[in-house]
Amino acid sequence: MTAGRMMRLGMSLRGLGYHIAAWRHPQVPADGTLRFDHYLRNARAAERGLFDMIFFADGIGIREKDEPRGSLARSGYEIVELEPMTLLPALAALTRNIGLVTTASTTYNEPYHVARKFATLDIISDGRAGWNIVTSWSEAEARNFNRDSHLDYDMRYGRAAEFVEVVTGLWDSWEADAFPYDKAGGLFYDERRMHVLDHQGRHFKVRGPLNVAAMPQGRPILVQAGASEQGREIAAATADVVYAAQDSMQAAQAYYADLKGRMARYGRDPDHLKILPGVRTVVGRTRAEAQAKFDELQSLVDPLVGLARVFNALGDLSGHDVDGPVPEPVIEPQMRSSVERILARARRDNLTIRQLYTQLTAGGFILIGTAADIVDVLQEWFEAGACDGFNVLPTHLPVACEDFVEHITPELQRRGLFRTAYEGRTLRENLGLPPHVNRHTAARRAVE
Amino acid sequence: MTAGRMMRLGMSLRGLGYHIAAWRHPQVPADGTLRFDHYLRNARAAERGLFDMIFFADGIGIREKDEPRGSLARSGYEIVELEPMTLLPALAALTRNIGLVTTASTTYNEPYHVARKFATLDIISDGRAGWNIVTSWSEAEARNFNRDSHLDYDMRYGRAAEFVEVVTGLWDSWEADAFPYDKAGGLFYDERRMHVLDHQGRHFKVRGPLNVAAMPQGRPILVQAGASEQGREIAAATADVVYAAQDSMQAAQAYYADLKGRMARYGRDPDHLKILPGVRTVVGRTRAEAQAKFDELQSLVDPLVGLARVFNALGDLSGHDVDGPVPEPVIEPQMRSSVERILARARRDNLTIRQLYTQLTAGGFILIGTAADIVDVLQEWFEAGACDGFNVLPTHLPVACEDFVEHITPELQRRGLFRTAYEGRTLRENLGLPPHVNRHTAARRAVE
Repeated sequence: MTAGRMMRLGMSLRGLGYHIAAWRHPQVPADGTLRFDHYLRNARAAERGLFDMIFFADGIGIREKDEPRGSLARSGYEIVELEPMTLLPALAALTRNIGLVTTASTTYNEPYHVARKFATLDIISDGRAGWNIVTSWSEAEARNFNRDSHLDYDMRYGRAAEFVEVVTGLWDSWEADAFPYDKAGGLFYDERRMHVLDHQGRHFKVRGPLNVAAMPQGRPILVQAGASEQGREIAAATADVVYAAQDSMQAAQAYYADLKGRMARYGRDPDHLKILPGVRTVVGRTRAEAQAKFDELQSLVDPLVGLARVFNALGDLSGHDVDGPVPEPVIEPQMRSSVERILARARRDNLTIRQLYTQLTAGGFILIGTAADIVDVLQEWFEAGACDGFNVLPTHLPVACEDFVEHITPELQRRGLFRTAYEGRTLRENLGLPPHVNRHTAARRAVE
Repeated sequence: MTAGRMMRLGMSLRGLGYHIAAWRHPQVPADGTLRFDHYLRNARAAERGLFDMIFFADGIGIREKDEPRGSLARSGYEIVELEPMTLLPALAALTRNIGLVTTASTTYNEPYHVARKFATLDIISDGRAGWNIVTSWSEAEARNFNRDSHLDYDMRYGRAAEFVEVVTGLWDSWEADAFPYDKAGGLFYDERRMHVLDHQGRHFKVRGPLNVAAMPQGRPILVQAGASEQGREIAAATADVVYAAQDSMQAAQAYYADLKGRMARYGRDPDHLKILPGVRTVVGRTRAEAQAKFDELQSLVDPLVGLARVFNALGDLSGHDVDGPVPEPVIEPQMRSSVERILARARRDNLTIRQLYTQLTAGGFILIGTAADIVDVLQEWFEAGACDGFNVLPTHLPVACEDFVEHITPELQRRGLFRTAYEGRTLRENLGLPPHVNRHTAARRAVE
């Protein structure tokens, strides 16, 4: 067949899923975030579904906020989990084709470590590594790393840009033909093909060379969630994949056009960056079945956990009847606009407190229906220039991951929107990205 | 059988082995340090041989010294290799019983990362993780981490002691019964069993709690190579295993007695620290075969690489005939004692330059002979209070690792000095160490 443009799909596998009550669902292993078999089961399901990659978001600490008092211990969300950079090599050993992407913070790491670990993961996985570049934002993380508060925005992004420059520089330390391994002649490496970075910048001083080489992808895939102005520029300059967060097609189209439009300035082909909005899906054989699945999850939201979700906007409502009306809050001036949006919704639809927080905890872009219903929307976005595919945020694991693979993937394939077998050996090849050319090799070729 | 005291054995798997010419040996894969299958083959051999653990030494950079000019590119030693903290989880997924120990530097890491990664490895491996605590010493590493030179000794050791205090504190963040996972009642964790470290020290400020819990070993094994005064104190206070470096039995006995003697002050049973000197073995069916194996390796030492080994002591000898006599060097005063020791040996035995550097590159404690010859010495050390077992430093991989397992392990078993099957589920159990009791649980029990 002459394949048309194909969707790229990622599956986010953090924790027990992206619904805040996931851990209470009868089919979810509540202790799964501390069990390797939980992660392995989901990774294998995603690979069975021919996903381009699995992805782990990450935080280097537990958020401290526990308001109303007692809500954190009842949330079961982002409390304890396996460290993804240690988890992925183990998953690499037991999978074969699926890409392996994880977050590493540029604020709380050193570039030499990050370069080395992702290079190693790329080798162990035979070319399936990807790095999601984040700057971190929480006070909880700052306090685990010798600080009282997190770095300000400009400092974080300045550091991030330089961090990426150092890491990508280190990855080019050795050209592909750097190692003759000549036992008879006694030559292990060719000095002319080894390059000392000698970076000296505002945030980092890193000499190099990297002590890892020969990555099957040339270098790992770079992933970002560049929403802000500086984030978009970094993404346009260097990212291979972007996780987007728009929950309307119009907003997604605008973001897509803007980001791809910035790439020409960096001499990049817009097709060499894949933009994947996050989407939650709840699929059933009928619409009623899908809705019932969703309603079951929503019914599991603990009142204290729900109240924690609206605490910032509305204050402590734990003294109120959650099945009564939303009271008039005392609003801090800087919160006014978001609070008024929430309140307007509560008043318009005559919501109780419980109805309000369950609506708010459901997340942004969520599709509930049959496989055909859901694929109708995915296809519309894909064909309307809103995305190059999607990053699936399963509500609860393993259920939502396996449901997608069993019901939605076949529907995408029937419509010719998604692969029926992995095309390439590496993540880079499966994503349809060009090979990475070492900068020093490129420079030599240019003068030859 | 009523087992007597059993030897503990570790196998060091860094690179292509501990002989400087290993990469040129015909049975060694010269590109092995960048191939996962190389590491896996050796890990599986060590597990077949019932070793307690495999171990990876590590450096976070490539040493810069290339004197005489061109020697580094010919050495093939500690140039490029997989990052061990990323490698071990992949080996964990494909092995079952063997302990997995790697180095992580307290100078170039943050304790929260180290605590989190080793806790995760302990879960993935089902209780087989160990952390070798080092302070790093090389300029090459300093220059990859924003510095011009490495920290001075007191600063490094002060930081190391505090680093270990923070990591072990974080590992106790959650008591064993912290997670009721009560879906019906909605309680995920029990606040009374979660502990905020809130460490504020000279080098670190780390709040915690750790976002990993439920390690099968309670906490990973702590390993050290405490040779210096401060290193010995840290080892006596906290280490489960020590890698020692004495190459005479008398020196090993003195070290053993000293270190075990320091433990009472910390309220520790001397049997709860296992001291393992490093040993190289070259085994043959006959002594002549063993010697021929060793001579082959020695013959592969490249003259430039050999001259680099004596450069510090004797200066650049690359203008001399390596098969001629050792010339009188110009000696820097601070080097005088070590240089004079080397020179005295050369003069006494009438060595050529080549003979001198091949002797020096062979390493410290090396045993060459039949399995019975080698086990005679290992047994003598073990029974004379010089050690609790050994850390094997294979000359070249996979040969020396597989040779040990095939020839030496059976001889140790025949004499009742080594296990014939793994006794326990975890590394801690196999080493005969007591269970780890969470400090907060212990404190509660004490008042109850």
